[in-house]
Amino acid sequence: MKIILDAMGGDNAPQAIVEGAVTAAKGFDAEIVLVGREAEVKTCLAAAGGEGLANISVVNAEETVTMEDDPTRACSRKKDSSMAVALRMVRDGEGDAMISAGSTGALLSGATLIVKRIKGIRRAAMGPVLPNGHKGVVLIDCGATADCTPEYLLQFAFMGSFYAERILGCEKPRVALLNVGTEDTKGGELQKAAFALLKAAGDEGRINFVGNAEGSDLLTGKMDVLVADGFAGNVMLKTVEGAAKFMFSQLKGVFYASAKNKLAALAVKKDLKGMKAMLDPSEVGGTAMLGITKPVIKAHGSSDARAIYNAVRQAIACAEADVAGAIAANIDYMKISASEGE
Amino acid sequence: MKIILDAMGGDNAPQAIVEGAVTAAKGFDAEIVLVGREAEVKTCLAAAGGEGLANISVVNAEETVTMEDDPTRACSRKKDSSMAVALRMVRDGEGDAMISAGSTGALLSGATLIVKRIKGIRRAAMGPVLPNGHKGVVLIDCGATADCTPEYLLQFAFMGSFYAERILGCEKPRVALLNVGTEDTKGGELQKAAFALLKAAGDEGRINFVGNAEGSDLLTGKMDVLVADGFAGNVMLKTVEGAAKFMFSQLKGVFYASAKNKLAALAVKKDLKGMKAMLDPSEVGGTAMLGITKPVIKAHGSSDARAIYNAVRQAIACAEADVAGAIAANIDYMKISASEGE
Repeated sequence: MKIILDAMGGDNAPQAIVEGAVTAAKGFDAEIVLVGREAEVKTCLAAAGGEGLANISVVNAEETVTMEDDPTRACSRKKDSSMAVALRMVRDGEGDAMISAGSTGALLSGATLIVKRIKGIRRAAMGPVLPNGHKGVVLIDCGATADCTPEYLLQFAFMGSFYAERILGCEKPRVALLNVGTEDTKGGELQKAAFALLKAAGDEGRINFVGNAEGSDLLTGKMDVLVADGFAGNVMLKTVEGAAKFMFSQLKGVFYASAKNKLAALAVKKDLKGMKAMLDPSEVGGTAMLGITKPVIKAHGSSDARAIYNAVRQAIACAEADVAGAIAANIDYMKISASEGE
Repeated sequence: MKIILDAMGGDNAPQAIVEGAVTAAKGFDAEIVLVGREAEVKTCLAAAGGEGLANISVVNAEETVTMEDDPTRACSRKKDSSMAVALRMVRDGEGDAMISAGSTGALLSGATLIVKRIKGIRRAAMGPVLPNGHKGVVLIDCGATADCTPEYLLQFAFMGSFYAERILGCEKPRVALLNVGTEDTKGGELQKAAFALLKAAGDEGRINFVGNAEGSDLLTGKMDVLVADGFAGNVMLKTVEGAAKFMFSQLKGVFYASAKNKLAALAVKKDLKGMKAMLDPSEVGGTAMLGITKPVIKAHGSSDARAIYNAVRQAIACAEADVAGAIAANIDYMKISASEGE
């Protein structure tokens, strides 16, 4: 098992990436390849106590994709960037999975351009896992494609279902469609058409479609996969983030309101940390880009060493589970037209 | 000032509606008219100690719109329903504002059909106010219209701006467009086209457009109005609800985790209740249906007496502020085509 890490992507790169790689190299039975400016990466490696580890190596890449680069062109313009080099390595079989905490848009475009989509898949999709008190829920898509067709949503349903089954360990994952109500006839044109496709796939026994779900259902444990167009999915994901932040700031206000409350805060401090961790992107790991021929994992831009460690664990799981293989094997059931997007 | 209340709408009708009306009649300088099955309403009125109040009256309506009725036809099929009668009364000037906790879809269709949209307004919109640590933020639309055009979004921006200015007391309300990123070029086709319209309206000084905002920005106080298509807005609103519920249930878990934590919980209990109240729909009041010629307020389906009391306060504010008048006076700046939807 070999995991390729873009050492230069993310707010805390390369230091946090290298530190996470060192912990992962010590903790997992896998080889880690760090791609980035060699001298810089090696300095971080020495500082993190990873110099002597046999299962960490460095591959030089002079350039770096930044947030200022046009995402759709970053990897083709900067062919020597750590991101592009890492993507080519996983494409060419020099690694089993690739992780980057760099620009989401650049990684998505780069993965599509270099590693390619699975034949028949119209659009790659982002499928982060959110907490729901159970095994977690895959929200797919979350921003890769704002304007979606019903067929894209059908494909997201299959891809999310394979991911939930193979990575989260859900048996017959319950797949729901994001809508403005739970009745079958709800929603706009996109949702009505997608509902019909998902229902047909459910009736054929290809996915376990449980119907429409609302925004309030996401974290309840009612489903394992929630299918959304990339616009609404992105809004939803970021709204959860914002609501959690708002609630914690309000909670802080409560705990600072009086001396009595401050004492109470001390008592529950440790347990609250656990609750915060559950909603913390660095604990969740990264977001899988589904529909690409090889596992490509987007780690959060603000990833610290712990987040990178978790992303490596997730990348290993993705490579072992061969989600892409399951998607490719079922592509015939995920199409409604032969020509579009191919 | 006369407020018409649909006494039969909502999960706790007529009892909670009547109780709320009694408190409102005692607390506000306004006349309250309860519309519903007279005998039933009068029994509740006696039980709530409101029999002798000079500023409460009852208008009989034999039928009731239920959740089983087709929302688009409920008010035209059940002409004698409390909802339809109440809407006709406000249309005919027999009241200054109307409130119902009944079916959202039926109320929206009924208001459009009976009270009518302001001339030139393409679609009515729902504009609930969410907490943001400041004066609140109007999220418009929240589910009235799933499939929107750029022009609808332009109109939502104006309507939300007038509401924030006149009801929330925001000076030059900051209007943002919901998107998947804050850069000007983000989003799908709808957002790109709407951005151009909102920017032009901002450049002309008609609204204070502050650009794109993400899901995570909603509760931060960065804007007073967030413009969204009804699908994404509904998802967002319900996701906030769901995330708050999830966090409170997690918090409960923390507080029950140990005897020490239980003691801590006791200490902060009262303050936490205040925090919960802030996110509680019954405290917020109701949701204004903007774009209708008269104030129509949708109270939450699960409204208790306190929620109805708050909705009455909001209805009085809406009638006094004449938001509809402001919209009508500015309609020429809110159109991009002359024919559609008229």
